[in-house]
Amino acid sequence: MNPDILKERKSASFDVETLTNVLDGGPEKTRRRREIESMVLNDPDFQEEDPSFLSRSERYDQAVRKSAQMIQKLREYGIADPEEIYHYKKCVHPDRPEPLDLHLGMFLPTLLNQATPEQMDRYFMPAWNLEIIGTYAQTEMGHGTHLRGLETTATYDPATQEFVLNSPTISSIKWWPGGLGKTSNHAIVLAQLYTQGNCHGLHAFIVPLRDMKTHLPLPGVVVGDIGPKFGFNEVDNGYLKLENIRIPRDNMLMKFAKVAPDGTYAKPPSSKLTYGTMVFIRSMIVGESSRALSKACTIAIRYSSVRHQSEIRPGSPEPQILDYQTQQYKLFPLLATAYAFHFVGQYMRETYHRITGDINDGDFSELPELHALSAGLKAFTTWEANSAIEVCRMSCGGHGYSCSSALPDIYVQFTPTCTYEGENTVMMLQTARYLVKSYRQAKAGQQLSGIVSYLNEAQHRRVQPQPVAARPTVVDINDLASLVEVYKLRAAILVDLAAKSIQQELQRRKSQEDAWNNSAIDLVRASDAHCHYVVVKLFADKLRDISDTAVHSVMSTLALLYALHGITKNSGDFLQAGLLNVPQVLQTSVRIKELLSQLRPNAVALVDAFDHNDKKLNSVLGRYDGNVYENMFEWARRSPLNATEVHESFYKYLKPLRSKL
Amino acid sequence: MNPDILKERKSASFDVETLTNVLDGGPEKTRRRREIESMVLNDPDFQEEDPSFLSRSERYDQAVRKSAQMIQKLREYGIADPEEIYHYKKCVHPDRPEPLDLHLGMFLPTLLNQATPEQMDRYFMPAWNLEIIGTYAQTEMGHGTHLRGLETTATYDPATQEFVLNSPTISSIKWWPGGLGKTSNHAIVLAQLYTQGNCHGLHAFIVPLRDMKTHLPLPGVVVGDIGPKFGFNEVDNGYLKLENIRIPRDNMLMKFAKVAPDGTYAKPPSSKLTYGTMVFIRSMIVGESSRALSKACTIAIRYSSVRHQSEIRPGSPEPQILDYQTQQYKLFPLLATAYAFHFVGQYMRETYHRITGDINDGDFSELPELHALSAGLKAFTTWEANSAIEVCRMSCGGHGYSCSSALPDIYVQFTPTCTYEGENTVMMLQTARYLVKSYRQAKAGQQLSGIVSYLNEAQHRRVQPQPVAARPTVVDINDLASLVEVYKLRAAILVDLAAKSIQQELQRRKSQEDAWNNSAIDLVRASDAHCHYVVVKLFADKLRDISDTAVHSVMSTLALLYALHGITKNSGDFLQAGLLNVPQVLQTSVRIKELLSQLRPNAVALVDAFDHNDKKLNSVLGRYDGNVYENMFEWARRSPLNATEVHESFYKYLKPLRSKL
Repeated sequence: MNPDILKERKSASFDVETLTNVLDGGPEKTRRRREIESMVLNDPDFQEEDPSFLSRSERYDQAVRKSAQMIQKLREYGIADPEEIYHYKKCVHPDRPEPLDLHLGMFLPTLLNQATPEQMDRYFMPAWNLEIIGTYAQTEMGHGTHLRGLETTATYDPATQEFVLNSPTISSIKWWPGGLGKTSNHAIVLAQLYTQGNCHGLHAFIVPLRDMKTHLPLPGVVVGDIGPKFGFNEVDNGYLKLENIRIPRDNMLMKFAKVAPDGTYAKPPSSKLTYGTMVFIRSMIVGESSRALSKACTIAIRYSSVRHQSEIRPGSPEPQILDYQTQQYKLFPLLATAYAFHFVGQYMRETYHRITGDINDGDFSELPELHALSAGLKAFTTWEANSAIEVCRMSCGGHGYSCSSALPDIYVQFTPTCTYEGENTVMMLQTARYLVKSYRQAKAGQQLSGIVSYLNEAQHRRVQPQPVAARPTVVDINDLASLVEVYKLRAAILVDLAAKSIQQELQRRKSQEDAWNNSAIDLVRASDAHCHYVVVKLFADKLRDISDTAVHSVMSTLALLYALHGITKNSGDFLQAGLLNVPQVLQTSVRIKELLSQLRPNAVALVDAFDHNDKKLNSVLGRYDGNVYENMFEWARRSPLNATEVHESFYKYLKPLRSKL
Repeated sequence: MNPDILKERKSASFDVETLTNVLDGGPEKTRRRREIESMVLNDPDFQEEDPSFLSRSERYDQAVRKSAQMIQKLREYGIADPEEIYHYKKCVHPDRPEPLDLHLGMFLPTLLNQATPEQMDRYFMPAWNLEIIGTYAQTEMGHGTHLRGLETTATYDPATQEFVLNSPTISSIKWWPGGLGKTSNHAIVLAQLYTQGNCHGLHAFIVPLRDMKTHLPLPGVVVGDIGPKFGFNEVDNGYLKLENIRIPRDNMLMKFAKVAPDGTYAKPPSSKLTYGTMVFIRSMIVGESSRALSKACTIAIRYSSVRHQSEIRPGSPEPQILDYQTQQYKLFPLLATAYAFHFVGQYMRETYHRITGDINDGDFSELPELHALSAGLKAFTTWEANSAIEVCRMSCGGHGYSCSSALPDIYVQFTPTCTYEGENTVMMLQTARYLVKSYRQAKAGQQLSGIVSYLNEAQHRRVQPQPVAARPTVVDINDLASLVEVYKLRAAILVDLAAKSIQQELQRRKSQEDAWNNSAIDLVRASDAHCHYVVVKLFADKLRDISDTAVHSVMSTLALLYALHGITKNSGDFLQAGLLNVPQVLQTSVRIKELLSQLRPNAVALVDAFDHNDKKLNSVLGRYDGNVYENMFEWARRSPLNATEVHESFYKYLKPLRSKL
């Protein structure tokens, strides 16, 4: 153990294991998670070559090998609880996406939700046994967010009782689905349904892609890999061009909508049924934001405690870089953010599970708020975590650029969350739509419930932007409850500002749509403030559940830092609205410095509590034992370029050149 | 040509070629640059396989091939002017670093600057003819920024008249130098010189690493590649462990410092001689910030003009995504930033060349200010461009993640500028040191000259943070000169704030060093504000040089957008200091929206003016003709995973699995 990091652990004021239990949701959950993790990490079948040293084809190959083994072992060990499968999978492919993700996460669940009993009989067991490997083909080259714009067609031919599927244009080629390129032999294809001369919009069809014996693409199926990407090297994201592919009528998923043999179309009973899945996935992404950021923080903070550099006092030994105020100011607010997002993710999942029963009973009353919240929070947390991971990486100096740090991989694996499952700006505007609607309801005298109820209060108080100091300021910047309050008022004011911008545009005789687009900057800003308020509030709420005094104390400090740091980063909003005055903003900066010093002795313990196993973290800089340099040398020697002492390019180009010059 | 992009070009209000000439520094420069570019781009010897499709070893191999050819051809064509070599090299390896970068950029220049005439005779021509390939080995595994901390030793042995070089610890292993791993057979090694029992600090030594015939490492030389990184795939950044390597006395570069045969040490006459090079390199990096960002903007803005998505009005065709206010708000301020940084880079290089004569005459008077400015601006521009490139990438939706967009490569090739040639936070603190020193001089009544002279004015006006509205506000937010003035006052106030923080710490009996460290957040903030002021000022100044009315008009709009956008992003600073009042900040937001609409018809023309050749840009999304989709499909089909219809992993893992489940 490196002596510096040992010293850090001794200086902690709280018990790390207690905090880990809080994060996991109880000691029993911690125990079981570790049990599952060790099943994978101690299993020689899951040993792997460091993917950084492999070509893309080798990475894909290794991932397929491990996925196949995983399916076998989950059966063997009888692991069936979704949360346990999640932990197992997260260890097999340490936080990396893999070729079977869409088979497991989209193909099977879509069958479960949308297949008829007969279709279940035909497809489910073969898919469960990996004879059928499927993916979910929705996005097209020219169409993502806007589903109505998708161009793929499925035209019903009553003569043969078949659907004929086509990709009529280049831009209609299916593009991006994971596992589509090489792995899948089937796909659930989303296509515009045409029957009896009418278009009935998007429906889902099971389309065989490859021969079940030879795995060769079927006639009329043009399928392949879309090529190298930023990250996702293990996944064969693919393209699919359909050329007059005929499938039997009963390959359409017909649990809800139906096409009769003669081509008569029957509508689905409700459109809200797919809502819940989206909410669930976006809630999971909020949790992923915390996980990815907590890994980056673990690496950066541990490394900063063993790295010595420069001098604060001339002649003294080089200090740990964690002693620099600038380094603390970079990292500790991000550490607080990782905790905040963890608790938000917990809240989202709990809320989702709580109202799932209601949804199944047909009670959708809480769904719109949760739907709006999950959209905005998905955007808010992924954007924050995305840039935060890069701050962590760059806080490690040069070594943060080496793949041995694991930081480049954490970034490229995480960054797509800003785009998939709903592009972030679009997500923020979805939340804004809900906020503006609620605002108008409040204005019309309707009593709002839930998290937007502050829009009622705002109507009472008539909060609006006004010169600073024109209003008595009662905020105590050391009191978290008081800070939650100002975040709430900021959100209320910015929603008001956005709604008024729309109003002004309408008064200038703009259409509803143009008024909306011309206010989009304000709308995004309002959503952002709303989400920020929710995060601060949920962090503060969470403190009430923590009974251990020492853990409660350090979590309170983190929550306060999170709230105050957000104020300095957005001080213009708070000053502009008169929510804080200038002395308070100055005081905030001073207080933040005190909190950084206060957190300094607990920094390493706070990242230890995330309990990222070394083998899963796979970072030389973030090792638990802090023995960075010897292991970095060891790692570098395994670089493929070191396989020979002299690279062939010397003989091919450099040596011959000498005679020519 | 895509009809959308054609329409965009027709809507431009200015002549693109005229603006390109402004950027290049005159029509003749534009002509010559294009001439050189076409020499490379039309040369079949420089054709390459898209690196995205190659393994790292193949990428390195291809880069060595092209570098060797480049050296031959530069001789053949007699291209010797540094600027022309720069353009040629930038086309051979399109904005990619390459294995010979340090040979050309550090090894040869260091010989020129620090070798004695005898050493020049021995080394220069062999190095010029690529018999000797050298690198510059300074950074060690445990030591970067702080040069005094380097551990490699060179101990003089008068008995044999040799230096004995050693890497005494793991952390002293040389780490990161480009071309060190496999390419170089020599290195200039920076080591602590010991002679007659005394250490004389860092000196440079020429150390042979590999056998000149076989290219095998020499005995005692442990050398290799440090492994895969975030980007820089073409470069063999290396490690070097020296085990009792003996080199003759005259392998020390002795133009300045000397060691006599008996071991007597003679000091160099001045320590400022290496200053100039650092300033030059950092100025170049400011230019690179603009170049990288201008490429990202070109791709994002062209793509946004041909991509259609969603609907603003129901039933209407999907609009170009550039019509969304949020997309304009993401991209146009970054476009303005790319222009701003280009002009700052131009200014830095001109200033450097202007005062180079003075430096050669021993007049260093202007150097400290330029040195401080280049440090801060290097940090300011690289940080800004770094996050801006990612905003551009993510503004392209899913396709921004594909290597076919070129955006992932632009990012990973650019991001190291935040760390190399001086870690950015350290750079900001260097500038702050100069600012605080100047502030104290001004306070002591000394008259400052140059760009910091505003610290004199501040003393007169006694500017300091105070409640908003307590001071009459005279700023016209539509007048650029007025905005330059508020940026200046903001900088003055934040320098004052940082200096006072140090003062307060000292009054609490903290040491100078602790007072500095405890004020580091404020110091970085002050530097940042100073740099921001300089950028706004130089952009405004540049407008005076533009005679073409149409170009002047669009550049003025961009400059105004740059200044106003910076105000909204930092509105807290301006409000806090009472430089702007609340109505002005609200007005700023409104004005920004107007500027976005105003720039909309010129957006594509403004990126066209950067004149990035399609072959150099190598981006499917950023193609000049806008024909994105067909070319993306073409590109994807070349993905190595598509070499066979069925990947071998099917036979190895998936097929056998069926019998087991």
